Order: sequence, then C-alpha cells, then structure tokens
Amino acid sequence: MDALLFDPRQPGHVAFVADHPEPQRRRGEVLVRVHLAGICATDLELVRGYMGFAGVPGHEFVGTVVAGSRDLKGKRVVAEINCVCRTCDMCRRGLTSHCRRRTVLGISGRDGAFAQFISVPARNCHVVPRALDDARAVFVEPLAAAVHVATQQRIDRTMRVAVLGVGRLGLLVAQVLALRKCRLTAIDRAPAAVAMCERLGVAGQALADVKPAADFDVVVECTGRPDGLRLALELVRPRGTIVLKSTYALPGDRNLAPLVVNEVRVVGNRCGPFPPALRLLCAGKIQVEDMIAGTYALRRGPEAFAAAAEPGNIKILLQPDRP
Amino acid sequence: MDALLFDPRQPGHVAFVADHPEPQRRRGEVLVRVHLAGICATDLELVRGYMGFAGVPGHEFVGTVVAGSRDLKGKRVVAEINCVCRTCDMCRRGLTSHCRRRTVLGISGRDGAFAQFISVPARNCHVVPRALDDARAVFVEPLAAAVHVATQQRIDRTMRVAVLGVGRLGLLVAQVLALRKCRLTAIDRAPAAVAMCERLGVAGQALADVKPAADFDVVVECTGRPDGLRLALELVRPRGTIVLKSTYALPGDRNLAPLVVNEVRVVGNRCGPFPPALRLLCAGKIQVEDMIAGTYALRRGPEAFAAAAEPGNIKILLQPDRP
Repeated sequence: MDALLFDPRQPGHVAFVADHPEPQRRRGEVLVRVHLAGICATDLELVRGYMGFAGVPGHEFVGTVVAGSRDLKGKRVVAEINCVCRTCDMCRRGLTSHCRRRTVLGISGRDGAFAQFISVPARNCHVVPRALDDARAVFVEPLAAAVHVATQQRIDRTMRVAVLGVGRLGLLVAQVLALRKCRLTAIDRAPAAVAMCERLGVAGQALADVKPAADFDVVVECTGRPDGLRLALELVRPRGTIVLKSTYALPGDRNLAPLVVNEVRVVGNRCGPFPPALRLLCAGKIQVEDMIAGTYALRRGPEAFAAAAEPGNIKILLQPDRP
Repeated sequence: MDALLFDPRQPGHVAFVADHPEPQRRRGEVLVRVHLAGICATDLELVRGYMGFAGVPGHEFVGTVVAGSRDLKGKRVVAEINCVCRTCDMCRRGLTSHCRRRTVLGISGRDGAFAQFISVPARNCHVVPRALDDARAVFVEPLAAAVHVATQQRIDRTMRVAVLGVGRLGLLVAQVLALRKCRLTAIDRAPAAVAMCERLGVAGQALADVKPAADFDVVVECTGRPDGLRLALELVRPRGTIVLKSTYALPGDRNLAPLVVNEVRVVGNRCGPFPPALRLLCAGKIQVEDMIAGTYALRRGPEAFAAAAEPGNIKILLQPDRP
C-alpha cells in the first residue's frame, strides 16, 4: 500500500513509499481505510527525532472500517490513539492513557495513519455521525486534546485565562475555553493568528503588545516553542496555573525560579475524550474549516510536511485515496 | 553595628563590616537584637547573584525585641520574612506571601538578619515559648517552609512519597511528611544524608541504588540542584505531583516533554506558616540538633558561608553577640 515512512537515520524527512506492507491486524483490531489525516506539531517533532519513532507517522484521521469487526464494518470512524493493556497499575487506576505498556498510533511502537490503511483496536473507534463530514471529523483527535484542558483544570467565568500560541492546537483550545465564558485572551506572535481568533469571537492580542503583569489565573501554553514556558511564567499570577501542551524534541534553557517563588502550578496535558469533541463538532460549536490550509495526495507527503512547517499554514491534510 | 554585607559587584563573597548603620525602624516595625541566625541555600544562591540582592542577607533568625512595641519589648521572637502591603490584589485575595509590593527580609528590598540588629514589622513576629531554646527556634522559618509542603499538597497514608535531596530543607520536609504516615522514601546522593534519615526513622535510599520506575505519587524536590527536576520526573508516576522547593541562580537545561506526556503536576512551594512549625518544635516532634554543623561569630561570616557551601555541613549558624 501507499504510505509515508519516517526513517530516523534521515532526520527531518519523510519518504513516500508505494509498497509498504498492509498492516497486520492483531487480536481485537479493525482495519481502517484512511480517508483523511491531519499533520500536527507532534508529527513535525517526530521527524526531528522526538520519541525516537520509526515507521508510518499520523494519528489524526477519519476512515472506514473494512475488516475485523462485524459491528463496525462499513462504518466511518475516528480512533483514540493510545492502545492499552488494561492490566497494568495505571490501567487499573483508570488512567488508561498512561498505560505502562501502551503503544500510540503513529507516535510510539506502531504505525499510524499517513497510509492507505491503519489497524487499530476496535474499542478505540468512535463512529462518526453522518452529519459530520470528513474534513471536520479529522479534527476530533486534536479537539479532544483541547477539550481535555477544561476537564483537567476548572475554568469558569470568574477566571482570567490566556491561551498562549493560537496555532493548530491553540485555536481549538481557545474556542473550547470561550464556551466556558471565562475572561479569555488569545495571544500570539503572528498578527494573522490574532486576527483569526477575533474572527472566531475570541479576544486576541499580539505578543508584542502584551505587558506581562502576572495577572492571569490560568495560562494554556500552546506555543510549541521551548520559550513558551518562560512567557507563561511572566503572564500567570502567583498561585495560578499553567497548562502545558507543547512537547518538543529539544530541551530548552529554562529558569524555573519564578515557578517556585510564585508557587505556580504547572500541569502537563495530553490526550482527551473523544465523545465531547464529536458532540461539539456535530453541534457546530467549533469552527475548523478556516484552519485547513491545504489537502495533499499521499505521494506529495514530503511537500505536505514542508507546508505544515510553514508558520502561516494552520492545518495540512493528507488524502490517501487521492491519485 | 556589626553585619555581613553582600555587594553584587563582588559575587560569591560576603564581607564583615563593623560600622554598618543600625536599621531605621519604619512605621509598625520593631527592632530585634539577633541571637542566632541560620545560613540556608537561598543565602548561598543570593551571593551567587540570585534575585540581584544587595545588602545584609539572612532571614532565619531568633532574637529579642528591644524597641518599637510595648507588647513585644523584651520578648524573644522569630519573624515571618514577607513584609507586605495588605492592599494589593494578592493581599486582598489572602495570598499575602505573594504581595505585589512585598519586601523580603534579607532577600529582596530590605536588610536581613546577619547583623546585630534587624528591623521587622511587629505583625510578622511570633513569640517563642520559653521551652524552645535559640538553637531550635532558629529552625522555625525553614521548618515552616517544610510544613507548607503538606499544607499545599494533600499527603496521606495511602501515598508513596519521595523526598529527593535530604539536606538542610529536605531533612525537615522528610520529618514533617513522616508524621503524615505516608509511604515515605528519602533519597540523596550522599550516603551520610541517607544514614541521617535512617537515624531519624525515615527510610532512606542512596540515589545510585534507585531504579526510577515512575511510581511515586508525590516527589518533593529539595536537591537545590538544576538537575533535580529531571530526576523527579523519572520518579513520579503519570498524573502524580512534583513539589518544587529549590531555587537556583542559574537556569538549567531541561527537557519538559515527560511533564506533558505523563501529565505531571509541578507545584512551586515557598514560605509556610509559623504557628505549626513552632508547635512541632515545642512538642519535640522534629529533631534539629544533629543538623547543626557549626556556630560562627559574625566576624567569621565569610568562613561560615564557605562552611555552609560544603556538602557535608547541613546547617551553619551565625551568632552576632559572640565576640
């Protein structure tokens, strides 16, 4: 089958291959024909060496089940990315996304969705309602991660909240938090990103215009940049909370004294629940169409990755059945 | 009067001066004759340039009020270190230790206790019961900071807790947490520190023997070293908590991806409440005598600072009225 392949011996580069073997379904898994898949910041970091991944990347996708489950066959699905054991201490605690033996679609230990087919555990699948087209359903996974900010951290209308960095993920986080009616400000280096927030009804501010006054109750760090935490520490109030979303391949040089002196709480935040993300998209509460900067055939994958790395392009999609 | 003085133009060095002007009491302040003062890690960092401090350092002390308050005159006191405005947004929230306009004894904006006299707000003073001698009362301030770990973070007997670094502060934190009957392990590079924990009834482990299994519910980072957070991230379980105590002059090179991936909560933790610290010391629940490695006259201050920087010496005290 066609696939994009990352070889860690060639960092920074993905290759298109036309003869990648079709995935072998393991017990309890279904084979999904991928309609559409999204490139996210984690994919860009993976090909820079993050996680030491090798294989087919891609974890944001929508497709149709073609084999492995009578119930799901022919259904259009999205799938949660953590494939878990259900027996380790974390799974038994209910923290399945932290399963000690997990593999993660296109991120760790198994191939992902930048291919014609992907094999995923049947229990990871969520059926996509007919009303939700592929171009929106492909946003369920990152939107779930955005929803997770508000499941892990209480956000209410009394709170001053900043979303720092309104790119791929930040734009989703900002829209989710706006629904909580908190006192929200979206902050970005790029005037275009700020303008996009304003169009979505979220108050935006260019980073250059921000006077850090350590007065936000919550700062959600979505910059994807190593200096994001430093900026967040300048914005958050003493005893406030920073929700950290960005992961990077490279460590940054960080002075954490303000974290201790101001008794700030920093909380890492990763994958989220699919059902509320599906509901929000179906209800038209989250706008994603304007985020799509381009859709590429799989054989143009290297070009698509280059486009995804351009700051102006928010979301680049791959369409494996496009010739 | 005699005092130790830090001049930021001479980093790494404190000077003894015999002609430092006596402190001018401001409104609401009392003048305290210092009996005994302790050198802590923050003092060592200050003279390396942390906080850009200049003046008389020192914030752990016990002394006798000699002027400024009829009620307190002649009383032996310890004093909270944050001098606050009571009118800013943080003070009005009840977060007085985060007062926007605060000065901090011997750390920020005002002279400290490594001198014959110090001026402090009367409301910062706590009278020391007769039963508590100076050599133990001088530990009230750092013990309050240790108590604060358990006021900010719930610790109970179901929890596996690690104290990482059992030096000046870690030994106090370990003793406080042991009273919570949690499943406690004290970890240090130095075998002598581990042995001291064992003598105090706290299970200890040498860092070299620790196999990081990401299985502690809470890790209290008291190493005072830039790599402390990295170690803590290897010890804490997914969704667990790291309480960060160390502040350093120099930033460290830190890869925070595990914080995000494992959704760890990192909480900065600084000053704590004096009354429980006084009660614990009076009740003999916390052993501090064995921590004292030497007591120096003020004129031997530079020597005392050098001794405090030696890893084997846990607590070095300064005694201004010693000739």
